[in-house]
Amino acid sequence: MKRRQFLRNSAMAGFGSILVPSFAQAEILEEFKGKSTKNIIYMVSDGMSAGTLVMADLYSKRILGKPSNWINLYQQNLVTKAYMDMQSLSSIVTDSAAASSSWGGGHRIPNGRLNVGANGEEYTPILQKFKKAGKKVGCVTTVMITHATPAGFCVNSNARNAQSEIAEKYLQLRFDVMMGGGNTYFDQNHRKDKKDLYKDFVNNGFSVVRNKTEMQNAPKNKPLLGVFDEEGLPYSLDFKTDTNLHNKPTLAEMTAKAIEQMKDHKNGFVLQVEGGKVDWAAHANDIGALLFDQLAFDEAVGVAIDFAKKDKNTLVVITTDHGNANPGLIYGKNCNQNFDNLQNFKHTNDWVLQNILPDSSTSFIKEFVAENLGNLKLTNQQSQEIQSYYSGAVKEDGLYNYKHLPYRLLAEIQKEHTSVGWISMDHSSDYVELAMFGPGSEKLSPFINNYEMHNFLLKAAGVNMLA
Amino acid sequence: MKRRQFLRNSAMAGFGSILVPSFAQAEILEEFKGKSTKNIIYMVSDGMSAGTLVMADLYSKRILGKPSNWINLYQQNLVTKAYMDMQSLSSIVTDSAAASSSWGGGHRIPNGRLNVGANGEEYTPILQKFKKAGKKVGCVTTVMITHATPAGFCVNSNARNAQSEIAEKYLQLRFDVMMGGGNTYFDQNHRKDKKDLYKDFVNNGFSVVRNKTEMQNAPKNKPLLGVFDEEGLPYSLDFKTDTNLHNKPTLAEMTAKAIEQMKDHKNGFVLQVEGGKVDWAAHANDIGALLFDQLAFDEAVGVAIDFAKKDKNTLVVITTDHGNANPGLIYGKNCNQNFDNLQNFKHTNDWVLQNILPDSSTSFIKEFVAENLGNLKLTNQQSQEIQSYYSGAVKEDGLYNYKHLPYRLLAEIQKEHTSVGWISMDHSSDYVELAMFGPGSEKLSPFINNYEMHNFLLKAAGVNMLA
Repeated sequence: MKRRQFLRNSAMAGFGSILVPSFAQAEILEEFKGKSTKNIIYMVSDGMSAGTLVMADLYSKRILGKPSNWINLYQQNLVTKAYMDMQSLSSIVTDSAAASSSWGGGHRIPNGRLNVGANGEEYTPILQKFKKAGKKVGCVTTVMITHATPAGFCVNSNARNAQSEIAEKYLQLRFDVMMGGGNTYFDQNHRKDKKDLYKDFVNNGFSVVRNKTEMQNAPKNKPLLGVFDEEGLPYSLDFKTDTNLHNKPTLAEMTAKAIEQMKDHKNGFVLQVEGGKVDWAAHANDIGALLFDQLAFDEAVGVAIDFAKKDKNTLVVITTDHGNANPGLIYGKNCNQNFDNLQNFKHTNDWVLQNILPDSSTSFIKEFVAENLGNLKLTNQQSQEIQSYYSGAVKEDGLYNYKHLPYRLLAEIQKEHTSVGWISMDHSSDYVELAMFGPGSEKLSPFINNYEMHNFLLKAAGVNMLA
Repeated sequence: MKRRQFLRNSAMAGFGSILVPSFAQAEILEEFKGKSTKNIIYMVSDGMSAGTLVMADLYSKRILGKPSNWINLYQQNLVTKAYMDMQSLSSIVTDSAAASSSWGGGHRIPNGRLNVGANGEEYTPILQKFKKAGKKVGCVTTVMITHATPAGFCVNSNARNAQSEIAEKYLQLRFDVMMGGGNTYFDQNHRKDKKDLYKDFVNNGFSVVRNKTEMQNAPKNKPLLGVFDEEGLPYSLDFKTDTNLHNKPTLAEMTAKAIEQMKDHKNGFVLQVEGGKVDWAAHANDIGALLFDQLAFDEAVGVAIDFAKKDKNTLVVITTDHGNANPGLIYGKNCNQNFDNLQNFKHTNDWVLQNILPDSSTSFIKEFVAENLGNLKLTNQQSQEIQSYYSGAVKEDGLYNYKHLPYRLLAEIQKEHTSVGWISMDHSSDYVELAMFGPGSEKLSPFINNYEMHNFLLKAAGVNMLA
């Protein structure tokens, strides 16, 4: 045998042992061959920078003793993987409305709108197309069901903030499952026009459910509206600690119910699943909120993948709509210890700051922070600084920071104790992580523009209504 | 035809138009089938967070009118793509020495060492193995050739800082091409032991070259040592502006020369290429330095890929050893304009800060900063703050900041004008981007641990000396 021939043969032989899927895994992929994309589950961890995904996997491996479901798909070689450029028509850095619209309508549009172009062009949202093609369709989210990410798959609107109107549009659309927060936009006591939207949904044939028990008991033969909180649902870390919240469903439970409602439909279904508060946590530089909401999203990924593995005709897309705050664990001699200490957090920064009162003493603040945020020991000066935000002397602005609480200050103080840093309290331009599992996933290239996703999904499912 | 059969057929038919490589590109991949991995070019943009890669691609597309070479490989569907977990034995967040050693020796080791384990175990570096297997081997870098990343492929050492000793080890190893900076560790006037290492290299049969012209004229029949600066080479942005520096080679030119020196060797070659100052720029939160050094690295990627496309027996690995500072462009109404303004930068923050003197007036500092940093307008107070670092009143510490200059302060001031933020001035835990082109690349899974790379490369090349 010539030397080169020998080298080639030994190279081929040598590859058996590492980095290729085991027999069992290869078998799963094999099963998708020739299968059609009857169902699509489109999963969005909103505002998830790469560091968020990585820290959730590191936490899962170090503390929970297993990889995250998302990264495990990579380790098992079960998915295709790509970067997606999410920029909008108006900016390199997108907002969630333009982002979801780019997938939902197949076009880049200016930030702030829902499937409405620069000159007022209206692009038909993808769930309307799939519904018309005979599929069941729906959305579940941990923020308001009328918020940008679900809305971008459902409606056209000049303003993402028009959530009361978006709630009415949902009534007309009559989609099969719509669940999340947002009572404010359905409840007659909160709506400016005093309309009782819940009554309208019931009159229009819907089951309307307001807690986990009702959700689980909802019948399969009616469309389902679930609204479980005033605005967003609680952060997962607060939920974990506070059993009073346990009659609200988790994202994984909403996902399981949504699949259950639609899975036996003869023409299949398309479901969007959003971990919406990952984005809110990043906006607040709130590491406990961020990490445990990403893990809650990951639990929903597990539900979707378990279903898809059995079903074999389901394409699962797992991604995010943009980076946010680019968090990362920072080099330093205590970084492992600091990171592992996140398991001792009882509550989010958000919960802690919401529960400090104008008359809370600095010693109370010190104890309260230590007890709930992994034994973080504030100095007297730091405690006073935090207190000053409650007397009205100082205030902080920011998206979702309606009460002007010191999120930024607390994150700055925490940095030394968590080893986690943030570039800002807003979205970033990073290309986003994208993974696909199931029939159709083999068509994904390593790079895709956000506006190409729309036709990708329609073509995968054989629906002839391209943008 | 039944409905489902129809759907399936139309799905398959529909995929022809998007997201799959064109005929020409598919043909290139086809050509690797049955080819062996004779040569390997292993390319490391040191300390490149995802945002660094993305901003270089955005700049390239917006200002230079073409995608970066790296991302273009994704767009053309010519590579496999993965995440790599780079943690070291001692920390979730690696340093460059443990990172390069994980690839070089096939084991995770504590930070700070080169291929020496926790209990003193010595792991044979990969270029020694490839050399023994009959290949030509070498490294080129923009930092000292004795620095952690090249050294991790070449030597064992308890301390990455022992660069004078590492230079002597290179003499014994007699590798075929070693080029970068680091005169300090070769020159008898700088070495403590007063040894004239250049003379030793010449006596040992090497060509020793000290500038671009000499490099380009070096003969192919001798091993080549190139040392082009005292420590690291200049930042690419400063190089671009200052023609006095033009007799130093760029990373792309060193890469081309290294390939030229080794490409006709009958048993092939293995070359490591490092964009080392991307990491230094991130440590300094220096956006001009970071962006243009990443683009310079990308030019070297272009050289490697052009060669590999013609050669067809070359595996090109493109990656980084860890994140650093997680930079990202931040949402805001001026972010596009701020980002595009980077084309007006004449120099790096580093160059500007190095050229301010203790007697520079605040008005000089204002003019100097505006002229060189994209018309950044300092306030009087900001200018005074910068000045205070030169009077010795204030100082800043940091890796590579030997003169205690105000890198952090300047980056903070710049943030509003560049829309670029940073999480810290140090490495991060993010899994790193990894792409492979050429024969062997098809074996890459979407996730790999750093220590698995060693055997992956040896197996790809059919070299039977696994770790």
